[in-house]
Amino acid sequence: MDAVERRLAERRAMIIDELKAFVAIPSVSTDPAYADGVRRAAEFVAQRLAAAGLADAAVRPTAGHPVVTASWRNKPGKPTILVYGHYDVQPPDPIEAWLTPPFEPVVHGKRLYGRGASDDKGPMLIPIKVVEAFLAERGELPINAVFLFEGEEEVSSASLEDFVNANRDMLAADFALSADGAQWRLDLPSVIVGSRGSCALEVIVRGAAKDLHSGRHGGAIANPIAALARLLANLHEDDGRIAVPGFYDAVSPVSAEERAAIGAIPFDERAYLDSIGVSEGFGEQGFSLLERNWIRPTLEFNGIVGGYAGRGKKTVIPAQASAKITCRLVPRQDPADIGRRIAEHLTGNSPRGVTVEVCAERGSAESYALPADHKGLILAEQVLAEITGKGPLRVRMGATIPIGGIFKRALGIDTVFFSFATSDEDYHAPNEFFRLASPDAGLRAWARYLDRLGA
Amino acid sequence: MDAVERRLAERRAMIIDELKAFVAIPSVSTDPAYADGVRRAAEFVAQRLAAAGLADAAVRPTAGHPVVTASWRNKPGKPTILVYGHYDVQPPDPIEAWLTPPFEPVVHGKRLYGRGASDDKGPMLIPIKVVEAFLAERGELPINAVFLFEGEEEVSSASLEDFVNANRDMLAADFALSADGAQWRLDLPSVIVGSRGSCALEVIVRGAAKDLHSGRHGGAIANPIAALARLLANLHEDDGRIAVPGFYDAVSPVSAEERAAIGAIPFDERAYLDSIGVSEGFGEQGFSLLERNWIRPTLEFNGIVGGYAGRGKKTVIPAQASAKITCRLVPRQDPADIGRRIAEHLTGNSPRGVTVEVCAERGSAESYALPADHKGLILAEQVLAEITGKGPLRVRMGATIPIGGIFKRALGIDTVFFSFATSDEDYHAPNEFFRLASPDAGLRAWARYLDRLGA
Repeated sequence: MDAVERRLAERRAMIIDELKAFVAIPSVSTDPAYADGVRRAAEFVAQRLAAAGLADAAVRPTAGHPVVTASWRNKPGKPTILVYGHYDVQPPDPIEAWLTPPFEPVVHGKRLYGRGASDDKGPMLIPIKVVEAFLAERGELPINAVFLFEGEEEVSSASLEDFVNANRDMLAADFALSADGAQWRLDLPSVIVGSRGSCALEVIVRGAAKDLHSGRHGGAIANPIAALARLLANLHEDDGRIAVPGFYDAVSPVSAEERAAIGAIPFDERAYLDSIGVSEGFGEQGFSLLERNWIRPTLEFNGIVGGYAGRGKKTVIPAQASAKITCRLVPRQDPADIGRRIAEHLTGNSPRGVTVEVCAERGSAESYALPADHKGLILAEQVLAEITGKGPLRVRMGATIPIGGIFKRALGIDTVFFSFATSDEDYHAPNEFFRLASPDAGLRAWARYLDRLGA
Repeated sequence: MDAVERRLAERRAMIIDELKAFVAIPSVSTDPAYADGVRRAAEFVAQRLAAAGLADAAVRPTAGHPVVTASWRNKPGKPTILVYGHYDVQPPDPIEAWLTPPFEPVVHGKRLYGRGASDDKGPMLIPIKVVEAFLAERGELPINAVFLFEGEEEVSSASLEDFVNANRDMLAADFALSADGAQWRLDLPSVIVGSRGSCALEVIVRGAAKDLHSGRHGGAIANPIAALARLLANLHEDDGRIAVPGFYDAVSPVSAEERAAIGAIPFDERAYLDSIGVSEGFGEQGFSLLERNWIRPTLEFNGIVGGYAGRGKKTVIPAQASAKITCRLVPRQDPADIGRRIAEHLTGNSPRGVTVEVCAERGSAESYALPADHKGLILAEQVLAEITGKGPLRVRMGATIPIGGIFKRALGIDTVFFSFATSDEDYHAPNEFFRLASPDAGLRAWARYLDRLGA
């Protein structure tokens, strides 16, 4: 073990204490009531970067919550990485379901409990402490690095692309290395090589000017719920395949290699379905569950509402009914184009006697795929294999990670995900925790990664 | 004008004052907070009946709110009528939309404003005052009469059938004459000759054990909203005809006479659609709007809910989605049979990957049709023509009037509707009112009706 890794191991208890202080700051980005917590968390991050030896550490304003940046570019000829993470956290609701207060971090057994411990304060503190150890022990890093920590990841990275576009020179790098993006499973290390894009719509069907008595008026006029049900039913085939014309036009067929790679991943479908309480999977014919979830696009209904939904009955023909729709998109599908096609399909099939309005919602994002031969990816796999003793899986995310697309568009660089959180750590839920084994592995892995990259 | 009609005309102001005292009692049957008002209204009615000269007037308990009864059976050989009305009222909500307090009745111009003035306190007070006038002026009625005023009409007459079944002898009559059941239009007198029945269901579609992230899980499993939309869309053909097997089996074809009678009714479809803010009517091919609304059955969705319906988006695949369904039924359709057929159609077409549950809701009722040659109906038409100078229309109600079926089943008698409310008087809405011309016409009409029936 070299001096950097030894120093990190010796200071493990201090690093955990530092993480507890970080988790204790309630930096909930979505709720204005926590604005002070968000600001204090940004300052905390800037102080940690400065204490690590990065003299230009700064809290930088955006249209939303601030970004924290720092850089070290004293190794000409060596690669430069853009280190990414986020200091904002999900709301603690439902707060009554927490066994300990969400912003009073506490260690129980081998876990640190607290909101944000796993997503993403624990993982993002790791590269800061690693850089500090390099600068303390060697007076330099093995490579060049620039740091970008945002405060709006939990609100769709709303201000990030504008900031990145306005600071291209400051952020220039060979690739991004993200401390966010959890390990897929606890038992096997993994690297994320792709995530799906997204677009969001709301469809509103309107009938009469107000809710009407369904006896006095029933039979005379169209029912907006019935019309909405027909519109929504028309968006899928029976097997779940999306029926919107052109929806799949840009989607590449699944290649034999891709299919083989996904098929080789150990995945217990029955155990997965049991874990979410579902009797059977469902979706497009001809694709496995993981294929449908990772590399095929979806069109999901996230909410529907219309008329009376309280106890008992209220015999109305409602004036309107509406549904919220989001798609998950795969490479080459353009969110704006897909949103337009769905809107046209809905309005073009409007049933008689009602009007149909479709509104685009904020927060669309392109899918992201990391090239299979990316040197940063291959290095991540090598280091993970060394640290864990197991060859890592290449996995995808059914969900959307906006930074992949943002860094690609704004900076022309790819993003390698190198996070040491695990997807079972109840982030976005009560009793979030971070396994204390994770910083042990993560500190060693990041130190080794920087060294190897500079070699 | 005979002595009875003269007496009623002379006492008009006193009768309006009495109605105001009645309307001032907040007898909202659906809300337990008004239980005292319901009880006081029942006592008020019993006192008015006793004051009219009906010695057996009584407040009679039921499983719900009480019934008020009284009788006068001193004309052997003459017909007996069962006079029906209800003393309970709709809730005043939204109370802020009232221009004057709902339970502080006030006369503005030619209208008496207050909750229940039109539905049904004004109309039901009319026969009581008419009987009082007969007994005061002549010492007897021209016929026999029994009075039944309930306190649960606004909550589906929930306890009425049990009460009627348990009191068949006391309530025995040749036919019922209802003070409830408003005139269809202000400009033309009308008599109701039929109403539709009803049945109610809720369908619940369940998927995963809890709401899931629609990115992380989308594509893997079925979406309960999508499954519900397909189930609901399968309940109708494109034109609105109901697609449930056997739904129309018991429905008689529309006869040429029926079609001619409805076609002869002056009805401005465009004005009706404008009044409810709808651009065009909608429904089964081959039937006019009034036919669809009066004599064809319907299956309407009254409410739908599932997932997230707040502002912005929340990317979930919801654990469940549900919808409320009510049907309006025509003669020979059995509510229980129809409910079962719909439930079987829904559960039999359950999409894969979800479970479908169908629950029957309370409050089913059979349709009701009064024979075209009923002597009580023909007499009502004659009296209305005399009083108003216009031949009345025979109309139907798209809505459901439970008493028609209840009196038919329990007592074997038909119900003639002889109400002097008008359907535009905003009952069930803020600023309910009763036209002061209505008691003038109603008191004369009821007096004349009883005299003619006894002649």
